[in-house]
Amino acid sequence: MPTLGIDLGGTFARAAVVDEVGKLIASSKVALVERSPSGVVETIAQAASDAVMAAGVPLGACGVAAAGQIHKDSGVLSVAPNLGWRNVPLGALLTDRLGQPVRVVNDLAAAAWGELHAGAGRGSQDMLVVFVGSGVGSAIIAGGRLVDGGGGVAGELGHIKVVPGGRRCGCGELGCLEAYAGGHNLIAQTRELLASGGAPEVARLTGGDPARITPVTLEQAAEAGDVAAGEVYARAAQFLALAVANQVTMLNPARLVLGGGVLRHCPGLRRRVEEGVRAWSSTTSREGLLIADAELGDDSGLIGAALLVK
Amino acid sequence: MPTLGIDLGGTFARAAVVDEVGKLIASSKVALVERSPSGVVETIAQAASDAVMAAGVPLGACGVAAAGQIHKDSGVLSVAPNLGWRNVPLGALLTDRLGQPVRVVNDLAAAAWGELHAGAGRGSQDMLVVFVGSGVGSAIIAGGRLVDGGGGVAGELGHIKVVPGGRRCGCGELGCLEAYAGGHNLIAQTRELLASGGAPEVARLTGGDPARITPVTLEQAAEAGDVAAGEVYARAAQFLALAVANQVTMLNPARLVLGGGVLRHCPGLRRRVEEGVRAWSSTTSREGLLIADAELGDDSGLIGAALLVK
Repeated sequence: MPTLGIDLGGTFARAAVVDEVGKLIASSKVALVERSPSGVVETIAQAASDAVMAAGVPLGACGVAAAGQIHKDSGVLSVAPNLGWRNVPLGALLTDRLGQPVRVVNDLAAAAWGELHAGAGRGSQDMLVVFVGSGVGSAIIAGGRLVDGGGGVAGELGHIKVVPGGRRCGCGELGCLEAYAGGHNLIAQTRELLASGGAPEVARLTGGDPARITPVTLEQAAEAGDVAAGEVYARAAQFLALAVANQVTMLNPARLVLGGGVLRHCPGLRRRVEEGVRAWSSTTSREGLLIADAELGDDSGLIGAALLVK
Repeated sequence: MPTLGIDLGGTFARAAVVDEVGKLIASSKVALVERSPSGVVETIAQAASDAVMAAGVPLGACGVAAAGQIHKDSGVLSVAPNLGWRNVPLGALLTDRLGQPVRVVNDLAAAAWGELHAGAGRGSQDMLVVFVGSGVGSAIIAGGRLVDGGGGVAGELGHIKVVPGGRRCGCGELGCLEAYAGGHNLIAQTRELLASGGAPEVARLTGGDPARITPVTLEQAAEAGDVAAGEVYARAAQFLALAVANQVTMLNPARLVLGGGVLRHCPGLRRRVEEGVRAWSSTTSREGLLIADAELGDDSGLIGAALLVK
C-alpha cells in the first residue's frame, strides 16, 4: 500500500504519496507562512491533502522528516533549529490533525533510508551517508537498520571535534567539523578572507561583493592559486575527508553515499573526500567499499519518510 | 540451555560452559603448544571437553571469540595476527571436530556482547565499548544488535587516523590512534624517551632498564613532572579521549564502557578519557550517557561468545 511522506523544511512543507519501491505517485509543496506549531501543522495538512487528492489511492501510514533532534518514540521535536522550536510534540499534533498514525524522524535519517531503498544504497545493508550542505550531517545504516542512538541523535558527524577549542560552530560549541567544512561556514570563512583583503581571487570572482560568495567561490579561488583561500579550503577538505575516512574505519560500511549541495556543486571537495577515504580509512575496513553519489536529491527525505512507515 | 564459549588467545585457549544469564558454570584453560590450524583445533577441543566434563550438563551451540578479522557468515579467519594465520576456515574446522555448529566472532565483539548481557552494559541497547590494552579496539551495539559492518570488521577504533602520515602502526599504516595510545606503543614511545636520555623520571622509575617499562611507567613519569614523558602522555591521552568523544557524538550510545589493561591500570588515562568525552562530545549526544568500567575482565570474550550463540 502506498504511504505518505512529508518533508518539513525551514520554508516549505512538501508531501508525497510514495509506492512500495519508493516511486513518487504524486507530490505537493506548500509554503510555511506561519511558523507556530499549529500553523505548521495546518500547512502540513494542506500539503498532505493536496498530494493524497492528486494520487487518488488509499493510503497507509504517514512519515515526517524534520531537521532537528527528535525523541524517537514520542515524536517530540526537542530542538528544531530551522523553526526555532523546542519540545514540540509534532507527532501527536499531526496524528490528531491527520487522523492517522504519524512517525516523525530526523531528516538525514529519512534521507538515508530513502537512498538505501530507492537510491544509491540499493542492495546494501551497511551504509554510511554523508551530507554536506549548509551543515554537515550523516546517517548510519547497519545490518539494514537505522542506527539512531540511545537518544535518537546518532550521526552528528558535523559536530565531532576536529580542533578542540577551535572555531565556534552554529551549535555553540568550539572546533566542530561543521565550523570548518559546512556550507554556511565555508561562506563565512571566505567572507573573512575577502574582508581581510588578502584573497585576490576571491575579490576577483565576486567583484568584492560578499553577498556573491558561495562555497564554490572558495573552491574556485583555491584552484586558481589564491594562497589564503587555498589554506582555508585545504583545511576544510582535510578535516572533512579525514572525518569520513575515520567513520569508514569504525563502521566498515559496504556503501558510502555522498550527498548535499556542497558536495554536489564542489567537485574538487567531493574528489578530496573520496581520495581521503582511500588514503586514510583502514585497509580492512575499505575492502569492497563502494563510494556513490546520492541519487534522490531533494526527494530523499520525502521518499525515505514514506518508506520508513511501511 | 547452557552454551559453550571459547576464547582463543595468542597463548591459551579457554573454554567455559555459560548459563542463560552469562554465569560461568565451569571453565578450563589449555596452553597452545602448536600454532598450526590443526594444532589449535585440537587444543580448543581439549579445552572444550574439559569444560563440558566439569559442567556435566547438556549443551547447546558453541561460540568462539578470536582476535582478528573474521568473515561473519563463513567463520573464516582472514587475518589472525596473534597466530600468524591468513584465511583459516576455523568455523568449519571446529564444527567438524566438535560435531556441532560453531560460530566464530571477533574477540572485542564477543567481549562487548558479554558486557551488554552480563556486565557493565546490562539494561542498555545502545553501547560503545572501548578497550585499551596492548592495542586499541572497540565494539558497537546499536538497538541491541552488534554492528559488525559489511565485511565484519567494524569497530577498528585503534586504526582511525589521528595524524595523517604520522607514527607507524603495527598494522603497517601511518598515524593510527593505536600507534600513539595502544599499550605496545605507549611502551615503545617510553623506551624511545629512555634511550634519548631526556626523560629523567622514566630513568629513575625503571633504573634505566627498558624491559621494566610498562604503560604505567609513562603515566607515573608524566605525573611526577617529567616534561618529555608528559608530552608523549598528554598526546596519547588527547588523541584517545578525542577519538572516543567523537564516536560518542556519532553513535549517541546510552552507555560507554571502558575496558582493557591499560585503562584498568592507568587511572589518570582513564580519567582523561572520561573528561574528554564530557568536554568534546556534542551536548545532545551525551545527554543521558552513562560511562562505566568493564566488569567481566578477562572473561568478557568467553561469556560473550557463549551468549552470542543462544
